Amino acid sequence: MGDKLTKLQEEHMASFAPLSRVVVTGGTHGDELAGVYLVQKGLVKQPEFLHRETFTAQAIVANPEASRKSCRFVDTDLNRCFTFESLSSSTANSSSYEIRRAKELNHLLGPKGSNEAVDFICDLHTTTANMGTCIIVDSEKDYLSCQAAHYLKEVSTHPCRILLMKSGTPTFSMMSLAKHYLTLEIGPAPHGVIRADIYNTMKMLVGHLLDFIDQFNKGQEFPAFNMDCFQIERKFDYPRDEEGQLTACIHPKLQDSDFKPLFQGDPIFQSFVSEDSICYEAQDPICPIFINEASYYSKGIAFWGTKIQTFEIASIKVSI
Amino acid sequence: MGDKLTKLQEEHMASFAPLSRVVVTGGTHGDELAGVYLVQKGLVKQPEFLHRETFTAQAIVANPEASRKSCRFVDTDLNRCFTFESLSSSTANSSSYEIRRAKELNHLLGPKGSNEAVDFICDLHTTTANMGTCIIVDSEKDYLSCQAAHYLKEVSTHPCRILLMKSGTPTFSMMSLAKHYLTLEIGPAPHGVIRADIYNTMKMLVGHLLDFIDQFNKGQEFPAFNMDCFQIERKFDYPRDEEGQLTACIHPKLQDSDFKPLFQGDPIFQSFVSEDSICYEAQDPICPIFINEASYYSKGIAFWGTKIQTFEIASIKVSI
Repeated sequence: MGDKLTKLQEEHMASFAPLSRVVVTGGTHGDELAGVYLVQKGLVKQPEFLHRETFTAQAIVANPEASRKSCRFVDTDLNRCFTFESLSSSTANSSSYEIRRAKELNHLLGPKGSNEAVDFICDLHTTTANMGTCIIVDSEKDYLSCQAAHYLKEVSTHPCRILLMKSGTPTFSMMSLAKHYLTLEIGPAPHGVIRADIYNTMKMLVGHLLDFIDQFNKGQEFPAFNMDCFQIERKFDYPRDEEGQLTACIHPKLQDSDFKPLFQGDPIFQSFVSEDSICYEAQDPICPIFINEASYYSKGIAFWGTKIQTFEIASIKVSI
Repeated sequence: MGDKLTKLQEEHMASFAPLSRVVVTGGTHGDELAGVYLVQKGLVKQPEFLHRETFTAQAIVANPEASRKSCRFVDTDLNRCFTFESLSSSTANSSSYEIRRAKELNHLLGPKGSNEAVDFICDLHTTTANMGTCIIVDSEKDYLSCQAAHYLKEVSTHPCRILLMKSGTPTFSMMSLAKHYLTLEIGPAPHGVIRADIYNTMKMLVGHLLDFIDQFNKGQEFPAFNMDCFQIERKFDYPRDEEGQLTACIHPKLQDSDFKPLFQGDPIFQSFVSEDSICYEAQDPICPIFINEASYYSKGIAFWGTKIQTFEIASIKVSI
């Protein structure tokens, strides 16, 4: 039995070079203040916190101009600027601050997809939705990032959930500059507000993540496991009138119920005029997340529907 | 005994002409969406909700441009533009959108301080602070507004608190255009987010307020009472560095504790770097409110300190 397990683990073993260039980014959205302040005050001013035996992480404010103004972005959402197409286009003198900044970050931390790119980015976000402590990974095939997310979930004193973006879709996020990456997404917090509880949770998780990378670099093997996560299926928009204005808002029973399963007939919206409920019609239950996130109104998203999925994540160890 | 009470009430009787011009305003701050949507969707599209036997109220979006953009203001805070000085200045072509709009509203609903001004304005606000349902009145000498606040507190199914602005300070708020006025201030809600629970509470209270005014107009006498309220004493700013940047945030123990008494030695801030607590030093306890309101960072306010006070409010009835 022991032999069989070992054999299975060996079959699922992935190895990676040591992670020497590790970056913690805040202020990718300038009004998500926990990340902004954690980078500017809690990390840059405490270099010892970023130091481990095998590496010293770097802390960067991704969108300094938006962070200074405490707004999400200046011209366009920085976290949607990192497609290969956009980064390779000849728009060095683009009129968009964020497109210029994306190219600058690509130069600093990338180039995206190359061997020169940094090894790991941890990007810090907050949300107005009741997401609790959520770790977002882009792909179940990035074993190292999934192992990092699993480690954080295990060591954290707070309940953590892992969110998996829809596989196979192009990644346009800032953190996709790195070889491996994850997002800490914590809520609820209003944009433009720094809450100490979220700041403290974020700082604790960043510390644990750096420990994980240090242990990995030192040769610790992280065994294979089955990763239970919420995987994004599709978005749901608000009911809107012909001018695109909302005609209903999130129903009180759905508000703050992120990750809880939604069944056919459950109310999802409340109409402004009649106060009638609009219900979830599909037979197939889903788990809504990012319910009533402020910045999603303009993106046509009231919430995302997710499904609970399980993926086999291979064991990992450092290659020598 | 009965005679004595009656005599006392007669001595404290105030009478006012019927209130025929009543206005409900939302979107004075364009990112406080409960008020914006309640006016635009819940009231303007439901004229029957605004109709009473003795009057029909008008619903107005105070700052349409900021509301359209879902931001607090375009050029300057509209709710600080209503001083006599500013309204009477010859800046009809001011480059500030809000100053132009203030003059427009003064023309529409004022002139402030004149007999032609509307009788009552109820202004709808939300806050990122955990203020619950709060009714703000400007002066304990405006018996009619205090009676309205008391009525709402009594009939509401939610616990309500009355907040009294510091007496004797000049009023610059939008609602000060009217002869009598109050603010509904409900939280916590992130700016840029519409929460159905707050929308519903706001709508219920507006309905009750219109009932109160209708009953008053019909001759109902509202007896004298002792008004327990929180009165603003002074503001507290965040600890800041020489560039004005925060060096600490609201302490987790103070966060969300609006209206609860703060005693000497209680922690109020948490330093970003050391995570040390900074404590309340004064001997005199205060009750903090508007703790960690997003829009107050730039105004140098971490929270307001209030004291519980009691004022005798005279009975009121309509003059014929």
